[in-house]
Amino acid sequence: MQALQVQQKKLAVCDVAKPDLENEVLVRVLLSGICNTDLEIARGYAGFNGTIGHEFVGLVEEAADKSLVGQRVAGEINAGCGACVLCKSGDSRHCPDRTVLGILGRDGAHAEFLRLPATNLLPVPDKLVDEHAVFAEPLAAAYGIMDRVAIGPGSKVVVIGDGKLGLLCCQAIALSGATVMLAGKHPDKLKIAARRGVETISPKQLANRKREFDVVVEASGSPTGVKDALELLRPRGTLVLKSTFEGPANMGEINQARLVVDEISIVGSRCGRMQPALELLATEALDIDSLISEEYPLARGVYAMSRAATKGILKVLLRP
Amino acid sequence: MQALQVQQKKLAVCDVAKPDLENEVLVRVLLSGICNTDLEIARGYAGFNGTIGHEFVGLVEEAADKSLVGQRVAGEINAGCGACVLCKSGDSRHCPDRTVLGILGRDGAHAEFLRLPATNLLPVPDKLVDEHAVFAEPLAAAYGIMDRVAIGPGSKVVVIGDGKLGLLCCQAIALSGATVMLAGKHPDKLKIAARRGVETISPKQLANRKREFDVVVEASGSPTGVKDALELLRPRGTLVLKSTFEGPANMGEINQARLVVDEISIVGSRCGRMQPALELLATEALDIDSLISEEYPLARGVYAMSRAATKGILKVLLRP
Repeated sequence: MQALQVQQKKLAVCDVAKPDLENEVLVRVLLSGICNTDLEIARGYAGFNGTIGHEFVGLVEEAADKSLVGQRVAGEINAGCGACVLCKSGDSRHCPDRTVLGILGRDGAHAEFLRLPATNLLPVPDKLVDEHAVFAEPLAAAYGIMDRVAIGPGSKVVVIGDGKLGLLCCQAIALSGATVMLAGKHPDKLKIAARRGVETISPKQLANRKREFDVVVEASGSPTGVKDALELLRPRGTLVLKSTFEGPANMGEINQARLVVDEISIVGSRCGRMQPALELLATEALDIDSLISEEYPLARGVYAMSRAATKGILKVLLRP
Repeated sequence: MQALQVQQKKLAVCDVAKPDLENEVLVRVLLSGICNTDLEIARGYAGFNGTIGHEFVGLVEEAADKSLVGQRVAGEINAGCGACVLCKSGDSRHCPDRTVLGILGRDGAHAEFLRLPATNLLPVPDKLVDEHAVFAEPLAAAYGIMDRVAIGPGSKVVVIGDGKLGLLCCQAIALSGATVMLAGKHPDKLKIAARRGVETISPKQLANRKREFDVVVEASGSPTGVKDALELLRPRGTLVLKSTFEGPANMGEINQARLVVDEISIVGSRCGRMQPALELLATEALDIDSLISEEYPLARGVYAMSRAATKGILKVLLRP
C-alpha cells in the first residue's frame, strides 16, 4: 500500500506492506489531515521514522469483532499499555509506554490503511461528512483546553495564532460563553473567526493589551511566543501552551518572580477527548469548511506537505 | 521610633518618624519575623526603599474606630486601592495599584509602629502566643498552595527546600491527607518535618524519583530549581513556584514540548488568606516552635538579618 513516510528527516510516499492485524483493527483510511505536528516531525521533532499522520476518518476493514467491519470511525491516537496505573485510571493518553499514531512507535494515517486497538476507535455519526469527521482529533485537542482551564461566561480569552489550531480553539472556546479574541497576521484567516463572532486583533495591537486577559492560548507555534503571551495576563491568569515543536522554546527570559507575584499559571495542553469533539462537529456549530484549503491524492503527499507549510494555507487533506 | 530600613541596598536601624494615621490604623509591633523576601529586598529585589518586614503581630495603638484600640492583631500585607475590579471582587492582593507592607510603597513591620488599613487587620485568637501569631503571614502563604492546586488524600507531593517556607508548606499540605515528602540538605531541619510524619529525602536521592509526583512545590529559592523540579512530575502534574528572588530564574532550559506533551502545569503562588492561617495556628497542629531559631531586639536588626541569612538558621524574630 502507499504511505507517506518520514525516514531520517526525508519525506516520501513509499510502497509499504499493509499493517498486520495483531489483535488490533485494520482501518481503510478515507481521508487524513496534515497537522503542523506532521511538519515538525518531518523536521525531526519526536525523532519519529515511519508513516506520519494522526488525523483521519476511515472504514473498519478487518477486526476480530466482525460487527465492527464496515463501520466508519475516527480514532483516539494514543494507545496505552493497558496495564499501568495511568491506563487503569482511564488516562492512556499519558501512559509512559504508549504508542501514538504517526508520532511515537506506531505508523500513522497518511496511508491506505492504518491499525489501532479496537478501544481507540469511535463511530462517526452518520450525518457527519468525511471532510468534517477528519477534524475530530484537532478539535478534541482544541476542546481539551476546557478540560485544563476553567473557561466560561465572563472569562476573557485571547488565542494567539490564526492557523488551523488557533481557529479551532477560538471557535470552541467561544461556545463556552467566554469573550474570545483571536490574534493573527492573516486577514483572510481572521475573517473566518470574525464570521463566528470572535473579535480579531493584530499581534501588534495585542501587545498594547497588557494584563487584560484571564486566559491566553499560545497557538502560534512561535518559540518566542511565551514571554510576550505572559505579559497579556491579568494576575492569577493562565497561559495555555498548545504548540509542540522541535528545539527549545525561548523561556529563558521569563521572570519567575512575575509568575509568583502575580500567581500566574502556565498549562500545557495536548490532546483532548474525541467523543465530545465528534458530537460538537455533528452540531455544525463550528465553521469547518473554511478551514479546508486544499485536498490531494495520497500519491502527492510530499507536495501536499509543502503546501501545508505554505503561508496562508490552512488544512490540507490527503485522500488515499 | 526605631525602624529597620533598606536604602539603596544599604541596611540600617534608623530613627524615623512614627507613621501618621491617615485614615488607617496605627499598630504597635509586638514581634516581627524576618522572611527570605526581606533578605532579597536587601539585595535589591522589588527596588524597595524604606522599612522592611511584613510578618508581625501587634497591638492597635490608634484608630478612628476606638473599639479597635488595644486589640491584638495580625495583618494582611496587601492594601488594594479599593476601587478597581480586582479590589471590588475581593482580591485586593492582586490590585495593580496596591501597596504591600515592607515590600511595595508602604513601610513595613520591622519597626516600633506600622500602619495598615483597618480592613487589613485580623484579631489574633487569645490562646495564640505572639511567637506563633507572627507566623500567620508565612503560613497563609504556605497554605495558599491549597487554594491554587487540588491536593488531598491520594495526592503525592514533594516540597523542595527545607527552609522556613518549605517546612511550613510540607506541614500544611500533610494536613490535607496527601502523601508529602520534604527534600533538603539539612538533617536538623528535615527532622522537624519527620517528627510530623513527613517523609524526608536528600536532593540527590530525589533526582532518582523522576515522573513520580502529582505536585512539586519549589521552595528552595534556587534559580536553577525549576528545570529539575519539572523532571519529578508525572504527566498532568503541577509545579508550584513559591520563591521570589532578585534576578532571572534559569527557565531557559525548559523544554516547552515536554510541558505540552505531558500536559504539565506551572503555578505561581505567593500570598494566602490570613484567617485560615490564624485558625490553623490556634489548633497547634503544626510544629512552629522548632521553626524559631533566634530572637533579637529590633536595635540589633542588621545583625539579625545577617543571622537570618546564615545557613542552618530558620526563623529569626525581632522584638521592638
